[in-house]
Amino acid sequence: MQIAIVLYDRFTALDAVGPYEVLTRVPDARTVFVAEQAGPVRTDTGALALVADQTFAEVTAPDVVVVPGGPGQSALMDHAPLLDWLRAADATSTWTTSVCTGSLLLGAAGLLKGRHATSHWLALEQLTALGAEPTAERVVLDGKYVTGAGVSAGIDMALTLAGRIGGDEVAQSIQLATEYDPRPPYDAGSPDKAPAHLAEALRERSRFILR
Amino acid sequence: MQIAIVLYDRFTALDAVGPYEVLTRVPDARTVFVAEQAGPVRTDTGALALVADQTFAEVTAPDVVVVPGGPGQSALMDHAPLLDWLRAADATSTWTTSVCTGSLLLGAAGLLKGRHATSHWLALEQLTALGAEPTAERVVLDGKYVTGAGVSAGIDMALTLAGRIGGDEVAQSIQLATEYDPRPPYDAGSPDKAPAHLAEALRERSRFILR
Repeated sequence: MQIAIVLYDRFTALDAVGPYEVLTRVPDARTVFVAEQAGPVRTDTGALALVADQTFAEVTAPDVVVVPGGPGQSALMDHAPLLDWLRAADATSTWTTSVCTGSLLLGAAGLLKGRHATSHWLALEQLTALGAEPTAERVVLDGKYVTGAGVSAGIDMALTLAGRIGGDEVAQSIQLATEYDPRPPYDAGSPDKAPAHLAEALRERSRFILR
Repeated sequence: MQIAIVLYDRFTALDAVGPYEVLTRVPDARTVFVAEQAGPVRTDTGALALVADQTFAEVTAPDVVVVPGGPGQSALMDHAPLLDWLRAADATSTWTTSVCTGSLLLGAAGLLKGRHATSHWLALEQLTALGAEPTAERVVLDGKYVTGAGVSAGIDMALTLAGRIGGDEVAQSIQLATEYDPRPPYDAGSPDKAPAHLAEALRERSRFILR
């Protein structure tokens, strides 16, 4: 089973690495990081690069496609090399997935028409214009399409998917191996829980740049 | 404020990227990935490389040190270039931190003597031989030393640290921006919650390789 995780300039690192850390532990999974060009791809902060080992041309029929989000997404909404690859990979994939604003790229490729899907809470409504039905849940399954909410939700998305692929015990073993027993020191992880003025400040900032 | 995240061959990606994604969002933070040699550093699975932008020699006085864990840790317990750098960096750091078996490297450098510390649940007892007091909590603070449990615990460790560095609202804003409102689809993230036979199987596997 080949898992292809897409990289592009100014993606958000945890969007990609959360699902990687979970899905790469599914028995018989082979994970590959793929981009338009092979080599280092910089994240949104500029302080980190992940290496894409293969090009889109080299990865033609992955079983699982994972598309992370990040500020770089907005520059790619009509970028044919990515969108064409997504459509071609989706034609034979078993699962097509995203984290955060990665769902906007799936939508731009025309893959979410009439589908329930989620995204970062700041971007959720943008799914409507792409023909999808925005669904404010952490992980949304609709047929073979699995979308996760913002950034850290990729871990929950991938564990859900690992259970579908390998069964409950595979997913539970991965959860235990990665000691995923979260204890956030604050309870501010969604706009209905965080102090209102902090949510408003992020909403204001996101008009210029979605992080 | 400079945050130095250490990379080494066969580290675990999420151990490094979880804290990165949180700490890099602290106002005025400058994050750098550092290793013995600059360039791509492969993770434990071989399927991913992160780029170290600077060498140990180039990063001499970071304010925050983050040491991830991973199977590669066991080969470094008497590796002078790393342990000497950790000791020198710690001499002037404000915070010295680890995720997972990264605490064993801090211990090997002699930095945890008499300190409470944690690690991956499969490695916790190894802290005793390094002079530390194993503490089975998700995040342990003892003076300027902040250690996190296995793999995913680096996110909780870093949010705790972000609150200490920038205050509660900075940490809450980061939690909201990364939508860290975890909803694991299973409740198997610690050995006391997971099915016993799955914990036993991991314990057996870890005799050969700790992942």
